[in-house]
Amino acid sequence: MTEPLKIALAGLGTVGTGVVRLIETNAQLIARRARRPVQITAVSARDRTKDRGVDLSAYAWVDDPAELATREDVDVVVEMVGGSDGPALAIARTALAHGKSLVTANKAMLAHHGLELAETAEKAGAALKFEAAVAGGIPVVNGLIDGAAANAVERVYGILNGTCNYILSTMEDTGADFGDVLADAQRLGYAEADPTFDVEGIDAAHKLSLLASIAFGARLDFDAVECVGISQVKAADIAQAQDLGYVIRLIGMSEVDTAEGSPRLFQRVRPFLVPTGHPLANVDGPTNAIVAEGNFVGRLLFQGAGAGDGPTASAVVADIIDIARGEKGPAFAMPVAELEVMEPAASGHRVSSFYIRFTVPDRPGVLAEITAAMRDAGVSIESMIQKGDPDQDGEVILAIVTHPGPESGVVEAVRILDGSASLIAPPLVMQILGS
Amino acid sequence: MTEPLKIALAGLGTVGTGVVRLIETNAQLIARRARRPVQITAVSARDRTKDRGVDLSAYAWVDDPAELATREDVDVVVEMVGGSDGPALAIARTALAHGKSLVTANKAMLAHHGLELAETAEKAGAALKFEAAVAGGIPVVNGLIDGAAANAVERVYGILNGTCNYILSTMEDTGADFGDVLADAQRLGYAEADPTFDVEGIDAAHKLSLLASIAFGARLDFDAVECVGISQVKAADIAQAQDLGYVIRLIGMSEVDTAEGSPRLFQRVRPFLVPTGHPLANVDGPTNAIVAEGNFVGRLLFQGAGAGDGPTASAVVADIIDIARGEKGPAFAMPVAELEVMEPAASGHRVSSFYIRFTVPDRPGVLAEITAAMRDAGVSIESMIQKGDPDQDGEVILAIVTHPGPESGVVEAVRILDGSASLIAPPLVMQILGS
Repeated sequence: MTEPLKIALAGLGTVGTGVVRLIETNAQLIARRARRPVQITAVSARDRTKDRGVDLSAYAWVDDPAELATREDVDVVVEMVGGSDGPALAIARTALAHGKSLVTANKAMLAHHGLELAETAEKAGAALKFEAAVAGGIPVVNGLIDGAAANAVERVYGILNGTCNYILSTMEDTGADFGDVLADAQRLGYAEADPTFDVEGIDAAHKLSLLASIAFGARLDFDAVECVGISQVKAADIAQAQDLGYVIRLIGMSEVDTAEGSPRLFQRVRPFLVPTGHPLANVDGPTNAIVAEGNFVGRLLFQGAGAGDGPTASAVVADIIDIARGEKGPAFAMPVAELEVMEPAASGHRVSSFYIRFTVPDRPGVLAEITAAMRDAGVSIESMIQKGDPDQDGEVILAIVTHPGPESGVVEAVRILDGSASLIAPPLVMQILGS
Repeated sequence: MTEPLKIALAGLGTVGTGVVRLIETNAQLIARRARRPVQITAVSARDRTKDRGVDLSAYAWVDDPAELATREDVDVVVEMVGGSDGPALAIARTALAHGKSLVTANKAMLAHHGLELAETAEKAGAALKFEAAVAGGIPVVNGLIDGAAANAVERVYGILNGTCNYILSTMEDTGADFGDVLADAQRLGYAEADPTFDVEGIDAAHKLSLLASIAFGARLDFDAVECVGISQVKAADIAQAQDLGYVIRLIGMSEVDTAEGSPRLFQRVRPFLVPTGHPLANVDGPTNAIVAEGNFVGRLLFQGAGAGDGPTASAVVADIIDIARGEKGPAFAMPVAELEVMEPAASGHRVSSFYIRFTVPDRPGVLAEITAAMRDAGVSIESMIQKGDPDQDGEVILAIVTHPGPESGVVEAVRILDGSASLIAPPLVMQILGS
């Protein structure tokens, strides 16, 4: 096995140039670990003239990325173009159809077309690998497919979006409100100009759908991920959570639910209250962390940088090294045909404690109306906090923490209060993560 | 690849029976993930009559474990006998020499004989795998060999002994002294009747030597691990560390040091002061956690159960699944002949802050003598704490934290004070982990 593995790169943005830098910097080490050299042969991007800070003169420049799929001197195509459809998908389809292995960090494309691409790879005898798509540099796909392979995974959950985690932990440290911290994050490059995919939880949902499929051997089902972002979280929520012994984190969580008979797939991205003693509560800044709970291993935690060119390149090249070693197992740990079809799980019967935040006018009777709705919905209140005086508009923030109970009760209480003059804004409901 | 992979178990203690339970409980899942069934065919242990809570009647019972190496119906021997030499080593040597793959959780045997066994495996075309030997259920060997494969690892360190971590974090929570917590841990089964291997850091040193070899591509060198345990840590140290913003953890740390020209291997197991904001500071109870710092990925953290039959069985069967998939790469990530010979690194030039605890009589002049020794050794003092009144013997605990400086200065200060009447007991020096 001393024949080099020949790599083509499609897309030369920050991650693409990171991959070039990594393969050049660590070339000797990679050859020792992969047991054969890894060699870039061809590259493709939109603008040939742009200065990317790396010397590309040793590699063939290809204007049309589709050509990479047919070149004799390419074994693996690395897709770093981005976007769920369009050129990225075309490159992926063409490369796999021609029997080239594909490595990608493109979670949006995989969330929408992962099964189709995995099937194409299987038919062609090629590998499809995407470690970098789930949690940046953290080897959690490998951790689930290899490290935890002996376990029935009972639950997988974690912090999957670095932008949201940066915003929430900065709100925590500074007391600033969401909008101000987002603006800072945009200036610092931690958030995109259009932050929707990150702050509304869509990016985390893409990643969660991939994790869930691998962890549970289930068919990928991105459309079924229930998804709420962090844009409604206020500085007051974070302060109240802290008083109660919690921090707020955007958590993606998935498990197999058998309450309705056949196994169903529960997938949720939402802000959670996390007890300060929980390992995820100590994850600050743009860091990601994933917990996998197995029936023999118990709780495993994988933590590291969830984004950035260095960490992403590290995961991309780890996949390339696997391919160089001949480890070309199925993309989702088992062949697509063997993945179980699981309907989306209902959530009404799920038992948890909740934090419910109401924005209310400062007048008599409000509390009576809210507590009556709770009672009528069968929700038992553990504690209630009202901190500070009304603001200049006479608004007060009221937070309730419930005893553990079925989620349907909280939904019903919110429904009862819908449209009430006692509520200035719709309530924000956050689940409390068990320790 | 539907031919089953046939497994023989040597040793049926708690881990061995855990492996039986796991392979039986998760049989279907393992077959899907391994892409072929995994089947126990033969078992061997000292006492056939003992009730182990699992039904062994379906497996051939073999009195002489050496026989497992020659049986036609065995592809992989799982060694769970324990001990660095004796029967465990005989089983390992014989199995590999006969071309059977070997899976083991035996860190003591590997620390002493790992290279010899890896060479035997290479010659025979067999696999030698030991995920369970390094950190129980945590897939950190896999994480380094696969997940972080693209990186030059700059440093690897962590909490590698659950018994010590249980004792230290319990001392922290209860204020109790080492001896009392150890006795409790022995009653609860967290510590052995003879706790030397654990509390003196030898078990952590075994594991660190394996980690270092894999992380740095260096020849295993257990004898060069500098090793100090936790038996000298007092409740007063923990209280003082807390006041300063630290917790105390037994840390194994390794890095490649190039200060002396050619790369040298630094390997140390010692109690460290860990800043409370560091991920390792939040690791409590019998949990293990390992940090690997790579030149592209940055800091990765792997955390989970470091011992116990379920987690250990999880790691053993993960190795078996790798072998079933045909992933039989070299034991230490590269062939033994390619591992670099690295001399042990000196430590005098290493720059760090230190905590030095003195036990002194409560009389004038003591402080002057200690601070003069510090000055003469060129050690700069950042802070000094003396908490509480002298005890009934007139002894006082005095703790000094130094500014960052070369380790040689602290060694020299302690040398100057050696034999002084101002010291009732030898000082305890602990390094402070950088954040």
